[in-house]
Amino acid sequence: MSSIFSKIAKGELPSYKIAETATCFAFLDINPIAEGHVLVIPKKEVDYLFDIEDELYQDLMLFSKNVARAIRTIIPCERIGVAVIGLEVPHAHVHLIPIFNVHDIDFSRPKLSLSEEALKDTSNKISEAFLAL
Amino acid sequence: MSSIFSKIAKGELPSYKIAETATCFAFLDINPIAEGHVLVIPKKEVDYLFDIEDELYQDLMLFSKNVARAIRTIIPCERIGVAVIGLEVPHAHVHLIPIFNVHDIDFSRPKLSLSEEALKDTSNKISEAFLAL
Repeated sequence: MSSIFSKIAKGELPSYKIAETATCFAFLDINPIAEGHVLVIPKKEVDYLFDIEDELYQDLMLFSKNVARAIRTIIPCERIGVAVIGLEVPHAHVHLIPIFNVHDIDFSRPKLSLSEEALKDTSNKISEAFLAL
Repeated sequence: MSSIFSKIAKGELPSYKIAETATCFAFLDINPIAEGHVLVIPKKEVDYLFDIEDELYQDLMLFSKNVARAIRTIIPCERIGVAVIGLEVPHAHVHLIPIFNVHDIDFSRPKLSLSEEALKDTSNKISEAFLAL
């Protein structure tokens, strides 16, 4: 069975898409711990980040860098933090999280509740910033 | 002035070294949030991860992957988590952290206090595992 993230990458489930390449896909986390919290995934379903073959892993990391640069042009923040944990959905995903301090990457923090409109607006803006890189 | 991490990479400050390449260096975090918590840095001093030029960034990420594989062969854990925050030392560094659950990457957790001997033993074992990859 496809993971929820595979379905998102294939467009079988809706998402607030940011950008995609031939091999990777980026979209807003709908349970964000910060505004502009984005998930970046390989389209191929691999559970554990470090099991991804080198070429695809490099694609994923370089794409994450570019997405992070786009987020930072839109979301006021000190910088974009990175986290890969991956114990919940069995499909490797890179969290890109706008942060102000070291404690901003803490997944036990309460999730933000953002309106559909706010998420749509944020994803559109980051998406446009990505295209303009 | 060189960052503390530059001094470690140059051997001007001691560290529990894991491995190095021409461009990158890995060593134990001496304020670990888990046993086997490793920091991976580019030898070149760049403050923000996503300001690193693509080639060196790719080197750093691929080296991190290999170091993570070595850690996992030595430290009992579910997988190796990744975090890049970088608001404390102005020299980009990738945290590789053995984790069991999603809350194991939380930098507000109390740091472990490990003996010099324990750190030395862990770094030696991970270092040997890296060479055997």
